[in-house]
Amino acid sequence: MQSFGQPDAMNKRPKLSGEDRLIARHFKPLAKAKGAFSLLDDAAAITPPAGCDLVLTADAIVGGVHFFPDDPADRIARKALRVNLSDLAAKGVKPLGFLLTLALPKHIGDRWLAHFARGLGSDADRFGCPLLGGDTVRTPGPVTISITAFGAVPRGTMVRRNGARAGDRVLVTGTIGDAALGLLLRHDRKNAARWGLNRAQHNHLASRYLLPEPRNSIADALRKYASAAMDVSDGLVGDLAKLCRASGVAASIDAARVPLSRAAQTALTNAPALLETILTGGDDYQVLATMPARKVAAFRKAASAAGVAVTDIGAIAAGRGAPRFLGRDGRPLVFARASFSHF
Amino acid sequence: MQSFGQPDAMNKRPKLSGEDRLIARHFKPLAKAKGAFSLLDDAAAITPPAGCDLVLTADAIVGGVHFFPDDPADRIARKALRVNLSDLAAKGVKPLGFLLTLALPKHIGDRWLAHFARGLGSDADRFGCPLLGGDTVRTPGPVTISITAFGAVPRGTMVRRNGARAGDRVLVTGTIGDAALGLLLRHDRKNAARWGLNRAQHNHLASRYLLPEPRNSIADALRKYASAAMDVSDGLVGDLAKLCRASGVAASIDAARVPLSRAAQTALTNAPALLETILTGGDDYQVLATMPARKVAAFRKAASAAGVAVTDIGAIAAGRGAPRFLGRDGRPLVFARASFSHF
Repeated sequence: MQSFGQPDAMNKRPKLSGEDRLIARHFKPLAKAKGAFSLLDDAAAITPPAGCDLVLTADAIVGGVHFFPDDPADRIARKALRVNLSDLAAKGVKPLGFLLTLALPKHIGDRWLAHFARGLGSDADRFGCPLLGGDTVRTPGPVTISITAFGAVPRGTMVRRNGARAGDRVLVTGTIGDAALGLLLRHDRKNAARWGLNRAQHNHLASRYLLPEPRNSIADALRKYASAAMDVSDGLVGDLAKLCRASGVAASIDAARVPLSRAAQTALTNAPALLETILTGGDDYQVLATMPARKVAAFRKAASAAGVAVTDIGAIAAGRGAPRFLGRDGRPLVFARASFSHF
Repeated sequence: MQSFGQPDAMNKRPKLSGEDRLIARHFKPLAKAKGAFSLLDDAAAITPPAGCDLVLTADAIVGGVHFFPDDPADRIARKALRVNLSDLAAKGVKPLGFLLTLALPKHIGDRWLAHFARGLGSDADRFGCPLLGGDTVRTPGPVTISITAFGAVPRGTMVRRNGARAGDRVLVTGTIGDAALGLLLRHDRKNAARWGLNRAQHNHLASRYLLPEPRNSIADALRKYASAAMDVSDGLVGDLAKLCRASGVAASIDAARVPLSRAAQTALTNAPALLETILTGGDDYQVLATMPARKVAAFRKAASAAGVAVTDIGAIAAGRGAPRFLGRDGRPLVFARASFSHF
């Protein structure tokens, strides 16, 4: 598409436009799928697996908002892909591929792009989710990465948010709150000392912010056992509220059972007020799932076989209203905010 | 996803986050497709039509780069969708839906969004391409709209860029160069007087820049008759070069046969140097197609029935190299640049 920025600067271009060269150099090597047509056509084509629904999700990350502009380019790329993979995971979906739209300011050069593309390619391989197409545009703003990822599920089996029923157990994968604490550490390194963290604990939290670990390995198990699921991206409290609202149910969670990493436990012991950050902070990219109690053992076994720990943190209840998170005294915790939103 | 911008400002939010309310108010009404789940889930699901391939394309537009920040919000929205619909059209694809990623600076308010959503919804209805999902994020940069549109074609029938063969005719829809001239008018209104345009001609060119008219009505005809096709978004000269490169052929175009609007003809008569802008400027969003000469009449008839004029501008030739655009004297024109690129 034509931009109206300084067309004169383009006068000396050879036959391949700058955009074409950029794509050929950095992104064509990632476009291994046949239907990507080596990024040389206007669109990608895929043959959907027989008997399947196609599931699509889009998530963008913006420099200065969702990542720090000086984060390593490969991590930025991987985070951009992983936040989308996390949505597919929570919906029980096997990835098929993604489209990348990259808005780049002028100061971004070949070296950054090479680093970015390497990170993207390594995760595309690792998660079996190849680059199929996209767009690169100039922006006077920050680096902005929009990804649309898609995948397939047997027809009608996408795990929805709206299937939770009274009596279901509530489970989460991994540990909660690490990324939100990692972000606070990023803002102020002195927090590490305040919270009594050793270097390994500091690094653990910082890395959980920088790079989520999407739970695609349990997608099949979720489809088999979960009545509802979603990924925890905007904070456990707020995201569980969304799931409950979609399902028309309430929930009662035992806050003490919410799984914490050793680093988060240490921080919480030394700074008890962090409980709110842990429970409402974003960027966990764990899976929140509900299921009948009789299925929990089988789900736990399947998740464990896939290397993913799951923790039962409470129960779905009849009724409506915000889920209750009960403190050690059995009384509901009160949060200033349920989840992050920049609107 | 958690942003790290001023979480304190969020303390007073009610249960629905600002992002959720924004989506519910402005975009949920557009999410009429069943698989959009009223934008209340993490992903959309569609059942692909039997025997079809799914075709996907992504295009982004950025404020201050691809549109003027003071363009009417409904036009911005429609342009963002239409540049994607244009890709589907050129590939012979029937639209199924789209995902929208919207990066919004703080100054964008409800009124702008309502206007934006109205424009988007009206085109989604008109082109049968419903909103299925997406993401809204904050940006310190300009409004950035990334759309991934997708549709279906009978298996293996997506019209590629690489099917042009020596002897094929080269055709374009509509008229070429209007949007590029419209952009020059937008930059300097005095151009209208310089080029001898009356008010209607000025308005024609300006509106062709503001809002392209994608050629989705001839998608079936392209699939039936075209050996290769693409949409003309980066300038006819450069885009034909891409098609020729993909097909491994050359081309010879009679520049005088390139279809021009009355407004463009008037401008060109008064300012002959505009020929380069017309032939290499972007944002036409016409379809460039090749086909054997024996199919041209049937294609023309089908396009005409769909209300689209097509013009035969030259022929595909054996060999390689940039397509030649021949002037009135029969000698090839020389262009300073073949197409726009902001990289």
